[in-house]
Amino acid sequence: MDKIDWKPDPSSSIPLYQQIEGFMKEKITSGEWTVGMKLPSQRALAAAFQVNRSTLIMALEHLTSQGYIAGKSGGGTTIIHHQPERQWESPPPPNWNAYVEDGVHYPNLPTIQTINRMEFDPTMIRLGTGELSPELLPQEQVRLLFAELARQHMPLGYEEALGTYALRSQVSAHLQRVGISAPPSTILIVSGSLQAFQLISAGLLEKGSTMLLEKPSYLYSIHAFQSAGMKLIGLPMDESGLQVSHVERFKRQYDASLLYTIPTFHNPTGTVMSDKRRRDLLETSLRIGLPILEDGAYEELWFGHEAPPPPLRALDTQGQVLYVGTMSKIVSPGLRIGWVVGPQPVIERLADIKMQTDYGSSSLSQAAAAEWFGAGWHAEHCRTIRRQLKERRDCMLQLLDAHWSNLATWSTPQGGFYIWVTLHANISMAALFEHALKRGILINPGYIYDRSAKKQLRLSFAYAGLDEMERAMIELSILIRHIHCLSV
Amino acid sequence: MDKIDWKPDPSSSIPLYQQIEGFMKEKITSGEWTVGMKLPSQRALAAAFQVNRSTLIMALEHLTSQGYIAGKSGGGTTIIHHQPERQWESPPPPNWNAYVEDGVHYPNLPTIQTINRMEFDPTMIRLGTGELSPELLPQEQVRLLFAELARQHMPLGYEEALGTYALRSQVSAHLQRVGISAPPSTILIVSGSLQAFQLISAGLLEKGSTMLLEKPSYLYSIHAFQSAGMKLIGLPMDESGLQVSHVERFKRQYDASLLYTIPTFHNPTGTVMSDKRRRDLLETSLRIGLPILEDGAYEELWFGHEAPPPPLRALDTQGQVLYVGTMSKIVSPGLRIGWVVGPQPVIERLADIKMQTDYGSSSLSQAAAAEWFGAGWHAEHCRTIRRQLKERRDCMLQLLDAHWSNLATWSTPQGGFYIWVTLHANISMAALFEHALKRGILINPGYIYDRSAKKQLRLSFAYAGLDEMERAMIELSILIRHIHCLSV
Ligand SMILES: Cc1ncc(COP(=O)(O)O)c(C=O)c1O
Ligand SMILES: Cc1ncc(COP(=O)(O)O)c(C=O)c1O
Repeated sequence: MDKIDWKPDPSSSIPLYQQIEGFMKEKITSGEWTVGMKLPSQRALAAAFQVNRSTLIMALEHLTSQGYIAGKSGGGTTIIHHQPERQWESPPPPNWNAYVEDGVHYPNLPTIQTINRMEFDPTMIRLGTGELSPELLPQEQVRLLFAELARQHMPLGYEEALGTYALRSQVSAHLQRVGISAPPSTILIVSGSLQAFQLISAGLLEKGSTMLLEKPSYLYSIHAFQSAGMKLIGLPMDESGLQVSHVERFKRQYDASLLYTIPTFHNPTGTVMSDKRRRDLLETSLRIGLPILEDGAYEELWFGHEAPPPPLRALDTQGQVLYVGTMSKIVSPGLRIGWVVGPQPVIERLADIKMQTDYGSSSLSQAAAAEWFGAGWHAEHCRTIRRQLKERRDCMLQLLDAHWSNLATWSTPQGGFYIWVTLHANISMAALFEHALKRGILINPGYIYDRSAKKQLRLSFAYAGLDEMERAMIELSILIRHIHCLSV
Repeated sequence: MDKIDWKPDPSSSIPLYQQIEGFMKEKITSGEWTVGMKLPSQRALAAAFQVNRSTLIMALEHLTSQGYIAGKSGGGTTIIHHQPERQWESPPPPNWNAYVEDGVHYPNLPTIQTINRMEFDPTMIRLGTGELSPELLPQEQVRLLFAELARQHMPLGYEEALGTYALRSQVSAHLQRVGISAPPSTILIVSGSLQAFQLISAGLLEKGSTMLLEKPSYLYSIHAFQSAGMKLIGLPMDESGLQVSHVERFKRQYDASLLYTIPTFHNPTGTVMSDKRRRDLLETSLRIGLPILEDGAYEELWFGHEAPPPPLRALDTQGQVLYVGTMSKIVSPGLRIGWVVGPQPVIERLADIKMQTDYGSSSLSQAAAAEWFGAGWHAEHCRTIRRQLKERRDCMLQLLDAHWSNLATWSTPQGGFYIWVTLHANISMAALFEHALKRGILINPGYIYDRSAKKQLRLSFAYAGLDEMERAMIELSILIRHIHCLSV
């Protein structure tokens, strides 16, 4: 049930309880609130309507006596009919809630659902968000780009399954710069890299397949593969990335079909896989016949003087790496433009499923993305973003040093968005999440990325303003101490 | 394998067969052509390279002797190694073709794959295409709209799961005009209505569920539901739409969970469900507890003086209809913007899965769509489109009268894009499709929409130019006679 924005009007001549009764009846008879739906607790409802508990109870009793709702023995009130009692002769309308529970796709974790919702509360300080702060997005350039598009022929029709040729050739040239040769016929444009995972899970893997991946991993936080019936098996990492020495045994033990990796500025740990590891991983994967799905989301966001080692796909001479990239982490997540690079039959298979999924990505977004690369702004914009992200990282590290040094240890990322923090104390991360939320601070607990990461959290220095960061980091440090005191 | 655009250079000093050998080796060793892939026939390859068969065979023999390819006993040549023979000690790279065959999502029908591909061949006359001709799309308005967007704050970040509030309230107002009351909290923005089906199949239906639908139906031509393990059971139709009298028996017999319908200007038959049928269907569906999924894609495209009967959702007082709409058929398919309207818990469940699928629709597209409705162009544009579509329909009917009257019977649609044609003769539609294709004409055979519709085809008057239409209709009539003669 959505937040209830409506409140009874105390200056009205209609009693408050009747106003509430009327409001709720309207929601129920219109079908907006469905049969089977649970109402919030009496306390929560009374708070939402800003009335006394007794006023609320009067309204609920009226609705109960008319047969709309019923209290359940285990507590809680449920909507049971859409019509007043005398109309019950006709059977009740479909119980949508049963449908909602039946679907095969997993719901998001409650924590992630909360994060997804609260990120749109403008009062929140977002210390976990994996997204560039609006001030870092290329507003001005995109404005110019729109003005330019307004002068061109508008791409309003359905587009080619692989994506527009204009964008695929721009992406091809772009990839060349990170060492990946990919002709346009081996590139599929997707609506963000998340969609690529969805397509791969539907198009390339048998139900019940197993994927190896880093532990922790971004991929644990989405259900693309699990919902399609795949198993995810985490490989241990160290400061040089995933430990390749385990790959062969894991592949054998779990009969794995694919290995997913974020070799560069790994989400959530920030780790970069060393050059040697990359070559070892490729060699192993070739030897044991385990193809690789490489996620290059943060690849261009290095802070040092040198770029990180080349992507696996650049080292791959055998077509064993599927590579996924995105515009989300540097240019604009709202564009929803990403790409998959791979052998032609794979790309064509994925394109066919994409056609069945959404008939291709927004042609406006594709035109804007092609224009972006074509205008030659990318390299300069990357330099700006790197500089600014580095400043933000340094600020976050200073705050950690100043306020968290007795509380935790953390990584020092050389690129990307994230710092992976490990608390000393064994406090409940779910409690920290909840308490922080109440204070207007949104954090990403580690357990989203690895169920056993009970002492970790992922801090992002990409989103919040520097002032907000300071305020929130101090407040969090107090909270952690407080929760720790309560729990010992 | 993509069309091969490359040809050897006859003026080069390198022999043709060596050039071909080199070209193919490059494709194979780079992994662009994968192990397990079948090569086109020798005849097709020779034609593509514009060389004699003997030249081609020489190149293939060289590749065979080096261990790259092998002839199969059943005919056909397959790629077997990515490296020359002496490097075989290392095992071969992943056999991607096995992966391509393993995925759970069904591939499109070969006919549909061909259509999807050939629609981007600009020389084709597209007589089946379910899309407005580019000249009917509101190019000029969208240009203005872009110029306006260029003046505003650019929406570049990730967006709310339900879609932007701006667009949802515009859609809410838009729906009010067709009689549907839907507050923004009951609307989910999707990337075209096709995506809505994907989300519903993943989020609301158990594997193995059954859906009732019209026979024929657009839904048979996509695999959203079948790939998710659902069964589709077709209901007979007459000129007033699906025959409601069968619904109860079918629901019982197949234990159906949902009924999908396109009540207005049905795709592919053009039928409008009568007002009485609509009320009967609602009454039945309520009585037997079978919720409805209503597809309103062509709803606004009527040709007469009056709008068709109100949508089911407008008559639904019990929240038993999920309604799906789209911008594709009137404004722009390339926007990839549609919506689902339903009870809040259903919409929230679908929104959660949408977040897991692609993190929301393109924010550029959402901004453009909101701007479109906000600018107030919609009603006027609809009037223009209706007038022009009616002219096109009349033209198509005249052509049918003039050239097809001995060959077929057909419907006279009062709106939408399509005429459903039934041939007298029992000729192979697949053969007609292939022959038409060779002559540069793309048609949609009826069997795409109903496996048993062997004598039908769906003509669209929305896409091809009037000249093209005439040329193609005459040519098709000759083809039909010709194929008929050969087959008797
Ligand atoms: C590693 C990684 N891959 C992929 C994505 C998905 O991004 P998008 O779907 O916006 O391309 C993210 C976003 O958080 C990410 O961190
Ligand atoms: C009846 C019907 N519904 C839905 C669609 C899908 O359109 P879109 O995904 O572009 O909204 C079509 C397109 O052909 C259609 O004919």
